[in-house]
Amino acid sequence: MAEKNISSDILFLGIDGGGSKSRATLVTANDEFLGTGVAGPANPFQDMEQAFNSVLDATHLALKDAGLNNDAMQRIVAGIGLAGVNLPRFYQKVSQWQHPFKRMFLATDLHIACLGAHAGQDGAVIVAGTGSCGYSYVNGQSLTCGAHGFPFGDKGSGAWIGLEAFKAVLLASDGLGPATSLEERIADFLQVRGLSMIEKMAGTASNHYAKLAPLVFAAAADGDAVASEILEDGAAYLSAVCNKLWQSKPPRMSLLGGLGQYIVPWFDADIAERLSPALQQPEYGAICFAQREWEAMGKPQAG
Amino acid sequence: MAEKNISSDILFLGIDGGGSKSRATLVTANDEFLGTGVAGPANPFQDMEQAFNSVLDATHLALKDAGLNNDAMQRIVAGIGLAGVNLPRFYQKVSQWQHPFKRMFLATDLHIACLGAHAGQDGAVIVAGTGSCGYSYVNGQSLTCGAHGFPFGDKGSGAWIGLEAFKAVLLASDGLGPATSLEERIADFLQVRGLSMIEKMAGTASNHYAKLAPLVFAAAADGDAVASEILEDGAAYLSAVCNKLWQSKPPRMSLLGGLGQYIVPWFDADIAERLSPALQQPEYGAICFAQREWEAMGKPQAG
Repeated sequence: MAEKNISSDILFLGIDGGGSKSRATLVTANDEFLGTGVAGPANPFQDMEQAFNSVLDATHLALKDAGLNNDAMQRIVAGIGLAGVNLPRFYQKVSQWQHPFKRMFLATDLHIACLGAHAGQDGAVIVAGTGSCGYSYVNGQSLTCGAHGFPFGDKGSGAWIGLEAFKAVLLASDGLGPATSLEERIADFLQVRGLSMIEKMAGTASNHYAKLAPLVFAAAADGDAVASEILEDGAAYLSAVCNKLWQSKPPRMSLLGGLGQYIVPWFDADIAERLSPALQQPEYGAICFAQREWEAMGKPQAG
Repeated sequence: MAEKNISSDILFLGIDGGGSKSRATLVTANDEFLGTGVAGPANPFQDMEQAFNSVLDATHLALKDAGLNNDAMQRIVAGIGLAGVNLPRFYQKVSQWQHPFKRMFLATDLHIACLGAHAGQDGAVIVAGTGSCGYSYVNGQSLTCGAHGFPFGDKGSGAWIGLEAFKAVLLASDGLGPATSLEERIADFLQVRGLSMIEKMAGTASNHYAKLAPLVFAAAADGDAVASEILEDGAAYLSAVCNKLWQSKPPRMSLLGGLGQYIVPWFDADIAERLSPALQQPEYGAICFAQREWEAMGKPQAG
């Protein structure tokens, strides 16, 4: 069904490589949808080789979905968004990859998420998921806030909320902080009590802490002052990030990430009101990015 | 020289097992000093097998220092202080060790440090080193504050001070927190700038963060408000731990740990004035502990 006039043209591929999944979307030079594929994690921080394999897996699945065989790989201009490639060391390593595409353009996960949220136009995003960060892209200039990682960055994120909740529980258990229902809630969730909770949390990664965040929202909804204070503090930081991003005069701003809908009621009202929904997924942002870079090289999008 | 009347008597051995070193001290049943030995780390959390080996190494060195051969091992009643044995899982594992001693008694590193600081009498200690905690032992009752570990516990410790400093630097670098000389100081110390600092700190252990603590004391001494606020916050927590410990009515309280002398000027004055110097090292506390447990079994100390 997709084998009409796509036999020789350039194909554009957008890849959103993430810490748990990679998503690929394939379109024609005329932006017609061809296929999509979802594969494993692609985080150069965690595992460079796995990241490359996940990108290839997602691409193969998208080609298959499009009814194309792997020969079409040579016609693909790929835009790939990956965490960590803002760091020169990672950008260089990924750039040196012997990829099978006609051409590969590399951007941060934040950049393609921002392009996607605003359908390829200028704008800003604030991300509140396991981690947190802010990003704006206006007139070819980018601005990043946060994106520093756990445990020192990511304020207002799920991992940060979980960590602060656990700290509050430990203070309360020593009688050195206010009592909080988080003590019972976290003990129930971890299915252990007292010092054994520490054994369960010690040395775990940020996503483990992020799993505690829903308990904090539930406790705050039930009037727990400690939980409310954590969410107010986190939301105040995210609101400050929004204010910082508005200074770069983006036409639109969107809140992304799994925590977004829960934390936004804690934002300053004037900040929350100015947020707009994301228009497209990050993999579409990756396609926009690839098309723009390809055009910039003097290769018209539809020739 | 030590081969007088010690050929058949019980010997008491005190071992202070720590994250970087293990210290052993050997005495006669009449408390006469025989020898001492220092060996590698003994932290059951990090490496159980290594902990056992370090305890044995330190013991062999103490025996050698005493001019005794390894046959004397069977005459040793050992008191061993180790981190983590407050957790039932670790207590059980270490207890099951097929040790070469006549008898082994196991206590937490905190308990033997407290007994040492007060020459075997009741008292309390507050520890500010890489980690932080408080402990009192009065009329056979113990009370522990903190000792929860990094990154959720250890407030006021070197690791906590370093982490808070790094968080402040990241906020400042985004223009979302007050400017601080810590940015330059930490960059100089890590010998990298900007995002590369994150690469240097990401995924590192608590002792890595604790290395930043001296920079915070230096910055505060030079009038840096951000550094001062971190130290005030940490010292306020440690002061609160002291107040909590005083409620158990210990006759004395000592401040231990490498950070102690630097953080104590930041304590509330009335709290700082009530602190007394530690009288003996933790390995002497371990000897007191072993002697007491041995006597409790109906075996008189000097028979």
